[in-house]
Amino acid sequence: MKEDGIGPGQIIRRKQDGELEYARDELTVEEPLEIRIAGKTVATTMRTPGNDEELAAGFLLSEALIRTLDDITGVSKKENIVDFELRPGLKVDLNSAQRLGTISSSCGLCGKESIALIRRNFAPIAPGSFRVKVETLLSLPEKLRANQSDFARTGGIHAAGIFPAEGDACVVREDIGRHNAVDKAIGRMFLDGKYPLDRHVLLVSGRASFEIMQKALAAGIPIVASVSAPSSLAMEFAREMNQTLIGFLRPPSFNIYSHVERVILD
Amino acid sequence: MKEDGIGPGQIIRRKQDGELEYARDELTVEEPLEIRIAGKTVATTMRTPGNDEELAAGFLLSEALIRTLDDITGVSKKENIVDFELRPGLKVDLNSAQRLGTISSSCGLCGKESIALIRRNFAPIAPGSFRVKVETLLSLPEKLRANQSDFARTGGIHAAGIFPAEGDACVVREDIGRHNAVDKAIGRMFLDGKYPLDRHVLLVSGRASFEIMQKALAAGIPIVASVSAPSSLAMEFAREMNQTLIGFLRPPSFNIYSHVERVILD
Repeated sequence: MKEDGIGPGQIIRRKQDGELEYARDELTVEEPLEIRIAGKTVATTMRTPGNDEELAAGFLLSEALIRTLDDITGVSKKENIVDFELRPGLKVDLNSAQRLGTISSSCGLCGKESIALIRRNFAPIAPGSFRVKVETLLSLPEKLRANQSDFARTGGIHAAGIFPAEGDACVVREDIGRHNAVDKAIGRMFLDGKYPLDRHVLLVSGRASFEIMQKALAAGIPIVASVSAPSSLAMEFAREMNQTLIGFLRPPSFNIYSHVERVILD
Repeated sequence: MKEDGIGPGQIIRRKQDGELEYARDELTVEEPLEIRIAGKTVATTMRTPGNDEELAAGFLLSEALIRTLDDITGVSKKENIVDFELRPGLKVDLNSAQRLGTISSSCGLCGKESIALIRRNFAPIAPGSFRVKVETLLSLPEKLRANQSDFARTGGIHAAGIFPAEGDACVVREDIGRHNAVDKAIGRMFLDGKYPLDRHVLLVSGRASFEIMQKALAAGIPIVASVSAPSSLAMEFAREMNQTLIGFLRPPSFNIYSHVERVILD
């Protein structure tokens, strides 16, 4: 595998306008990653290899299994496993309440209850001074693209970027999974000690779902933007958790689904 | 919620070329679904409500928890829960070997081992007479679209369709999750007694990943087509499991990643 998450060229058959031809094609690499705490498996996710410690750290943050960099006392990486040693005394409940499915009523969880479960572990975003200009928002998709690989621009892979109120991306990460790209970007900032991300915007190349909003909330991110559509539950989540949710961010237009007060209008 | 998985119109703010305006927007509904066997939770998935029994049946098939319609002796649906009663004597191992993460080496699973785990539960597709014409393949994206909702065509939701060698779609299903759309489509055919799907093509609107190939194999589907890119592991899986994998199916062109012998060239 090459460094950028693209596999070796494969001989395939390609049909364009005319005959079937032999061609060489590059594919996004997908491999399982096992995330462990003290040798015990917490999760296995299909991801694009690379930046695995970031992905694992971002995942643990969003599951409320760690909160600060001090919670991690050691990390080892070996092929498709990342294994963390955590601070002694840290209570790690692998069946903790934030996992959907561990608690349910006779009718199953509804969206409102899913949000309530997340709220047990993460407070809503505090009201604050962080705001962004319309021009800043409109500049983000191009800044995301500028940090993506050529391959990603062709659509085989998802991207997530974290941006300050002004200026270039703090970090952009790519992965075959939307949620993995977000975990990697947040995990990088966390591992660099730039956390929580309470003065940052998260931009995702795909849709904004419940899970993406949950990860952003865990990291304290007040503004989430997507170049595509949010789900109904993502909007409900954002409205309740005091997050600004932007969708269909395709300059010159965009939609604001919640907390418009963080957008500085001209 | 309306019947088609679209939530009630929401008042949002929209910026197009000029000022920020109030607008009404419809969002794809996302809600948790809990899948149970005899009252015990097997999985919780975020899905677009509707066709929940199909989704649950398709999920159980792809996890090798059921194999035939006779395995199901009862089903109850209540809001966000589908609960199956299974045939007495059916061994249901909820930690069965096909679940990634239950078995791992000191380096974690690699792609090859992930495929081997699936092989424990599902045989490769048998060599057979099922083949499709190039013209048939090229006609599928339009047939998929013809069965999608207006909303889906705008991109807020994924679609999966199952097609015979000639003619219209047997079933098309939509969901906010790619894998859910596939589970629903396969689950519908299964519940209708049209199973296994060894003379059918699966077309997905999104990318073809390992998980999609696994679900197709479980249903015996010999040809999987995607309008987008496959992953490296999807291709490896298809080559080993004797599945024909078509990617970037965008008439007049497409790529064939494996087992070209099922495509009838002119």
